[in-house]
Amino acid sequence: MSKKEILVLEELLGSNKKIAAEIRKKLEEKGILTINLLSSPGAGKTTLLEKMAEKLKADYRMAVIEGDIETEKDAERIRAKGIPAWQIITGGACHLEAKMVGKLFPEIPADLDFLFIENIGNLVCPASYDLGENIRCVLLSTPEGDDKPKKYPKAFTTSDCLIITKSDLMPVLPFDLEYACKEALEVNPNLKIFVTSALKETGIDEWVEHLVSALHELRQKNA
Amino acid sequence: MSKKEILVLEELLGSNKKIAAEIRKKLEEKGILTINLLSSPGAGKTTLLEKMAEKLKADYRMAVIEGDIETEKDAERIRAKGIPAWQIITGGACHLEAKMVGKLFPEIPADLDFLFIENIGNLVCPASYDLGENIRCVLLSTPEGDDKPKKYPKAFTTSDCLIITKSDLMPVLPFDLEYACKEALEVNPNLKIFVTSALKETGIDEWVEHLVSALHELRQKNA
Repeated sequence: MSKKEILVLEELLGSNKKIAAEIRKKLEEKGILTINLLSSPGAGKTTLLEKMAEKLKADYRMAVIEGDIETEKDAERIRAKGIPAWQIITGGACHLEAKMVGKLFPEIPADLDFLFIENIGNLVCPASYDLGENIRCVLLSTPEGDDKPKKYPKAFTTSDCLIITKSDLMPVLPFDLEYACKEALEVNPNLKIFVTSALKETGIDEWVEHLVSALHELRQKNA
Repeated sequence: MSKKEILVLEELLGSNKKIAAEIRKKLEEKGILTINLLSSPGAGKTTLLEKMAEKLKADYRMAVIEGDIETEKDAERIRAKGIPAWQIITGGACHLEAKMVGKLFPEIPADLDFLFIENIGNLVCPASYDLGENIRCVLLSTPEGDDKPKKYPKAFTTSDCLIITKSDLMPVLPFDLEYACKEALEVNPNLKIFVTSALKETGIDEWVEHLVSALHELRQKNA
């Protein structure tokens, strides 16, 4: 990158950070726990959200911000589960930025428990942009391979949780779960890891429980 | 994006385009066919290249430029097949640029037949950067889902070929091959589609034959 490019990028990240901090503060004041989901295309972010909707709907209020380059397909899938969803279509841009989330603020109900943000399918660029979340979660699907944490480290170093998805496919794939977890923890020893299969419904309850206790912690902090 | 960001991006893309045109000219003069491989992380670019090495080695000379954010793992896999490979580690950057390829120029043997460039695993950003290739090829792995062409259109509109990988997994996945091809061709009617499985060794020969005839065409044009 040229000096000019670096300066523009630093300015952009600096202003993004400020907006993200404001968003986090406002959402925390309302007692809303915000979760930013990051992954490659097709790792299963929307399917995980569909499962979360089924599990959380009875006791909690959730909503979803969907980031996509084109199409409203993902928001439609979430709405079909009876969950409010807003689609941000970036029209080419490779990541969400805090200001895009900020623009939706007037529409977000004040009595939410969980606000999920599904980022653009991209394991690289979204990792550089704080969106005001409380929990950042990177998804790694088993077909992508167990070598990804060290090849795409930033998504793993900046995340609080790692959800390994499509674990049901492991018997037919060269995916070594122990190796993947070891590599991920070498990159970020603080990662909390969940091994899930949306198809077999395994591991989802543990992830839901983790979010519910994070919500209680947030509200105790506020009280 | 701000006006300043847009100007910097336009400048960058303009200068990239010029460098790419020079690279293409120089490689074509040497009779080398250059192929740029684009895909999400873990779609099977390196595995496809390993298979290409096995198929081409006896009759052709090939080499590979490996783009990765971190680690030299992919170049090592290619070298293990007896194929020269250079690793470009971008240290965070989300795509390869023509100038990175240009820097390797002095090392590229003049008597090559095929030069493959494996881009960063990212279905978004690499699509904006011409690297001086003759053929751009996007890979879509079946576990990523059949809805990707319309959600990530630029990788598909700017490519000459689409290689669907991991077709052996179709029986256990909700991937509709006919739908995926229809969507891809709606985005880009000129796409030449190959359906492959590296594991079952299906579809690879057709892709190799396509490249060999493209090589002959390039050399006839030069003659």
